[in-house]
Amino acid sequence: MLVAMLTFALLLQAAANSPAIVPKSPGEIVAQAPAADWVDIKADDLLVMQLASGRRVVIQLMPPPFSQPWVANIRTLAKARWYDGVTVNRVQDNYVVQWGDATEKKALPPGMRKTLENEYTAKLPEALVRSWAVRVAQQVEASTRDGRPMPFFSDKDAYAPAVSLVTGVPIGMKEDGEAWPVHCYGMVGVGRNLSPDAGNGTELYTVIGHAPRHLDRNIALVGRVVEGIEHLSSLPRGTGNLGFYEDTKQRVPIASIRLASDLPEAERPRLQFLSTESATFAVYADARANRKDAFFNVPAGGADICNVPVPVRKKP
Amino acid sequence: MLVAMLTFALLLQAAANSPAIVPKSPGEIVAQAPAADWVDIKADDLLVMQLASGRRVVIQLMPPPFSQPWVANIRTLAKARWYDGVTVNRVQDNYVVQWGDATEKKALPPGMRKTLENEYTAKLPEALVRSWAVRVAQQVEASTRDGRPMPFFSDKDAYAPAVSLVTGVPIGMKEDGEAWPVHCYGMVGVGRNLSPDAGNGTELYTVIGHAPRHLDRNIALVGRVVEGIEHLSSLPRGTGNLGFYEDTKQRVPIASIRLASDLPEAERPRLQFLSTESATFAVYADARANRKDAFFNVPAGGADICNVPVPVRKKP
Repeated sequence: MLVAMLTFALLLQAAANSPAIVPKSPGEIVAQAPAADWVDIKADDLLVMQLASGRRVVIQLMPPPFSQPWVANIRTLAKARWYDGVTVNRVQDNYVVQWGDATEKKALPPGMRKTLENEYTAKLPEALVRSWAVRVAQQVEASTRDGRPMPFFSDKDAYAPAVSLVTGVPIGMKEDGEAWPVHCYGMVGVGRNLSPDAGNGTELYTVIGHAPRHLDRNIALVGRVVEGIEHLSSLPRGTGNLGFYEDTKQRVPIASIRLASDLPEAERPRLQFLSTESATFAVYADARANRKDAFFNVPAGGADICNVPVPVRKKP
Repeated sequence: MLVAMLTFALLLQAAANSPAIVPKSPGEIVAQAPAADWVDIKADDLLVMQLASGRRVVIQLMPPPFSQPWVANIRTLAKARWYDGVTVNRVQDNYVVQWGDATEKKALPPGMRKTLENEYTAKLPEALVRSWAVRVAQQVEASTRDGRPMPFFSDKDAYAPAVSLVTGVPIGMKEDGEAWPVHCYGMVGVGRNLSPDAGNGTELYTVIGHAPRHLDRNIALVGRVVEGIEHLSSLPRGTGNLGFYEDTKQRVPIASIRLASDLPEAERPRLQFLSTESATFAVYADARANRKDAFFNVPAGGADICNVPVPVRKKP
């Protein structure tokens, strides 16, 4: 993990010397990103939730090395059409929307993987860290040369020694390279019972309020909502304990949840995210941390990891 | 500001030595708080927003020394019934709900105060800091003696040198005693045009997503929603730019906004908040930062200021 530690040290130093920026808004910066800075999201990494109301919510599944046993289960469940007919059962204000089988009686499909608590975190693999470190080194060089911003990295976080964004995922990390996805708005996690149960992927939730970061490392995060979160966040709040709907008629029926790769070509969402390793992302994140567009008087000089959401767009 | 600086240093040191806690959940700790730790919210500090739908939202106005010119204007507007018939015009997902006079033509009542940008922050007055420092010193002593938690204070914040909670308000602060309320979920602020306009209080918003802390020190915060936020946070999102409703029929009518002190006795909300200076609050905040109740495996060892919401209850 020497590479990880070197990168960590490099970024800590870089974060202390944030360079000057041009006063564009984050939105303007993203709109001007070159095509090469956008990454296609593969159809096999998109989960399409069709509400019975006709509304659609799209989730991007978590890339390796994070939470892969749960992600594999979710693919298995989606392929088996297991989720069809489940319901949103819980809407807790400033917290989560949760869906699953309210009867708790549906049989599981074959091929479900065992999940373990120690997989809530992962060691960043050498290859990933090395490619990331190379990109970071290139940007540090460009920054020194042109005064451009560094990649987003912060040690001003209440929940992790450091936070950053890697391959589209907001992460907490330690100096030894241990890392984990963090609970930002729109992130999707796996409901579970008390430890040592780690959840199997049948019960899912998404964050609809201030980032509940105390859940980090205590629960598996399997993706994030990249389209249609408003169809979940604006649902009526449940009045029961923890925001569960007290009247079963309040439950929100889900027609189906499918991998985009299992949908007809014409129905597949075609989305891209702004590469967190791109130079544009560094400029965007710096602008989020130092708002100097017309509305602002005092730039903060920093940003919470959950206030640097990864931009997503329809593929042009 | 020597007292402020001493307290700052004391708390920085205290934050580094967080003591062991009992494994109660934050909710259990609050439920067991002694009556003396609860503070009645005065009727003159409560703003009651009656939606035309019959739903009610209650806002606690900001105490001194923060944002008092705007708070005075809001009292003036409420007393003049100026807000009656205004509408919610903007609902932007993961950001704000905003209401005001969509026609922008209503005449202002007499007695409106001028507002200035330099009042987005305030120097904490000596008397407030001294009483706070005394309480803190008492708790530090109790902590040393009994191993009880210290008051919440953190320098692991991306937006301010330090954050804490004083007289019920989450604040950012500098070593010299300059402080400002921060944009947590449910906080209420004053919409404005471009600088140097600082807003007059006719256009208000509340936060319904992840804390947009980049707005801190750039806009006046005048209170927070203490009841009924779900009636705003679950409204349909606007599809126009910045979440404005495109169709005027989508606007949500507000029947009235009144000070509770101007309502008949029987209609006044009677609410209390847990004193942020109480020993119970310190234990509660510590539990939020170090979840050890049954569900949790890994306590975070810290908490974001906006993840330590001030508990509110109906007066028993």
